[in-house]
Amino acid sequence: MREPILLTPGPLTTSLATKTAMLNDWGSWDGAFNALTARVCLQLLRIAGAEDSHVCVPLQGSGTFAVEAAVGSLVPRGGKLLVLVNGAYGKRMARIAGAIGRRVAVLETPDGVAPDPAAVESLLRADPGITHVGVIQCETSTGILNPVAEIAAVTARAGRRLIVDAMSAFGALPLDAGAAPYDALIASSNKCLEGVPGMGFVIVRAEALEEAEGNCHSLALDLLDQYRYLRATGQWRFTPPTHVVAAFGAALEQYFAEGGQPARLARYEANCRLLCEGLEGLGLRRFLPAERQAPIIVTWHAPEHPDYDFHRFYDAVRSRGFILYPGKLTQVETFRVGCIGAIDQAEIGQAVDAVRAALDELVWLEEPVYQ
Amino acid sequence: MREPILLTPGPLTTSLATKTAMLNDWGSWDGAFNALTARVCLQLLRIAGAEDSHVCVPLQGSGTFAVEAAVGSLVPRGGKLLVLVNGAYGKRMARIAGAIGRRVAVLETPDGVAPDPAAVESLLRADPGITHVGVIQCETSTGILNPVAEIAAVTARAGRRLIVDAMSAFGALPLDAGAAPYDALIASSNKCLEGVPGMGFVIVRAEALEEAEGNCHSLALDLLDQYRYLRATGQWRFTPPTHVVAAFGAALEQYFAEGGQPARLARYEANCRLLCEGLEGLGLRRFLPAERQAPIIVTWHAPEHPDYDFHRFYDAVRSRGFILYPGKLTQVETFRVGCIGAIDQAEIGQAVDAVRAALDELVWLEEPVYQ
Repeated sequence: MREPILLTPGPLTTSLATKTAMLNDWGSWDGAFNALTARVCLQLLRIAGAEDSHVCVPLQGSGTFAVEAAVGSLVPRGGKLLVLVNGAYGKRMARIAGAIGRRVAVLETPDGVAPDPAAVESLLRADPGITHVGVIQCETSTGILNPVAEIAAVTARAGRRLIVDAMSAFGALPLDAGAAPYDALIASSNKCLEGVPGMGFVIVRAEALEEAEGNCHSLALDLLDQYRYLRATGQWRFTPPTHVVAAFGAALEQYFAEGGQPARLARYEANCRLLCEGLEGLGLRRFLPAERQAPIIVTWHAPEHPDYDFHRFYDAVRSRGFILYPGKLTQVETFRVGCIGAIDQAEIGQAVDAVRAALDELVWLEEPVYQ
Repeated sequence: MREPILLTPGPLTTSLATKTAMLNDWGSWDGAFNALTARVCLQLLRIAGAEDSHVCVPLQGSGTFAVEAAVGSLVPRGGKLLVLVNGAYGKRMARIAGAIGRRVAVLETPDGVAPDPAAVESLLRADPGITHVGVIQCETSTGILNPVAEIAAVTARAGRRLIVDAMSAFGALPLDAGAAPYDALIASSNKCLEGVPGMGFVIVRAEALEEAEGNCHSLALDLLDQYRYLRATGQWRFTPPTHVVAAFGAALEQYFAEGGQPARLARYEANCRLLCEGLEGLGLRRFLPAERQAPIIVTWHAPEHPDYDFHRFYDAVRSRGFILYPGKLTQVETFRVGCIGAIDQAEIGQAVDAVRAALDELVWLEEPVYQ
């Protein structure tokens, strides 16, 4: 059987060109690998539109490692981070800050409700101890797009620093480093840039990084130390995930060949539109209002039936070649479907067909939901 | 041109079967991937001979991330780590402990000189504040094999806990968890087990891990949290490097098919013997006495010529298809040649020929050194 298509927010389905880039072994000390690292970092800065102001620091591990590295390296030990929480990834950023001993404040809004920039402004005015604001650009636990540009504006007006977790958005959803000033933007190889998982990176304002001396609680996650070593030697400080970097390099070449951010976003938007039309045609309902839905991952209410079981639904769709993603909300029963990866409308159409057939088959359905 | 053979201590040359295992995309939530993770962890415990006493906690990132995770998770905040240093990796473990706020003592011996178990015993008697001892099994900055079993014995006798960095040894050099008791053994995918880089793992004594609550300075590197999530869900806590794990699974299958640890060690010993005979036949001299040389990586004195330049030597050997490793000693000019990876005596013989031809070519050699 064909390998299943991942309708998940990363790891996701990558192209064969990306995967075959892993068929070489690279010396981590060798000039050819150093050149690859330099090219990848430069391309990431270009995508961010931040070549003149920021530097790119790649980091081994998952995206969460890069989030912890950014918070630990940039928020001083006496600093305080205000995290805007409307889902699991906001909660995680706040948990990281607490775990590493930084003071934390949280502005929490319900799942699917965006933080209000005016409320952020009030909080910053009320608490001069807050040095940094943390926000998630696309909160994949629901799929909501948060108003990062507006948050950046109020944060800058208040003289505070912004840390953006752009993990599942970077490369597809635009965020202009000039118009929406941030000290750090964090993302990873395996989301909208369609590489394989195993590394994250932080686009960090050069001056903010230079001020980070002595902040970090960790050696492995110390962004400044990582950057200085890279700048001095061209090499990663500790063993890099060479094959992951090679795949990322290939994925970035394909990204630019496709037409960069506008083209990537257009493909994902078309995928998302087709997915929503298709599943709504089956009688399924979206969790988010359309205007806050990012074209990255869509949260769906579970089919309304007392005997509904996600695992059986998952297996029935998987046996037809597609991997769904479980819901992450505690109050309502949901599942999620990603729109990203090396997939096009053909795969989305087939996925809708697979969901239809799965719903049709499942014994807990007395009547198919799409009637 | 054929891709170069890596004579480096990891990343190293992997088999095509290992690399082609990365041609699939895996859902990190999917049952097939969970089964892969479980199988890899169980196989690692079996290699360690520690299924009854220890658990295996895989971790994203390079081996150093796993070292920091082990030290941070197992040494209590009020604890103290004695690190036995005779090279760069011992120094790094001590640096990690200091960076994360643990008290550190160091017993340093010169490069290439093993720590004396009696001296360790005296230090432990003299300083009851020391709770843990850290030792590097094979210190790749020279290639020396340290007497871990003897260190384990004196550490246990003194009622202290042992942390073994077995990064470049695990799977080839035996270390019996029963005979040489340790709380943690740290290694990674891309050394003697011949996977690709991107993950480490810690074989940790189950009781010691359960006592680790509240120790860790980091969320991403918290071994106990990582383990509990894995045990409860079968999944990695944060996005796993799926392709790296798949390659590791394939590499482990090949490891057992080859005959496991004895066969792997025998191949590396044969590689090392042939390498040493070959390069000594060219007049090159080893840094270490033969009795302390692990069959992992061999440090060589640079050819004796005032105009010797490592980079030109490296390039001349590389152009013949082999990647050497630079020296890491500060007092003497050296270079290193690895014996590990998916290579056999055929490649080692060709490598010796490549070094001979490179030395022959290089203009700074008035007379070839092998005369």
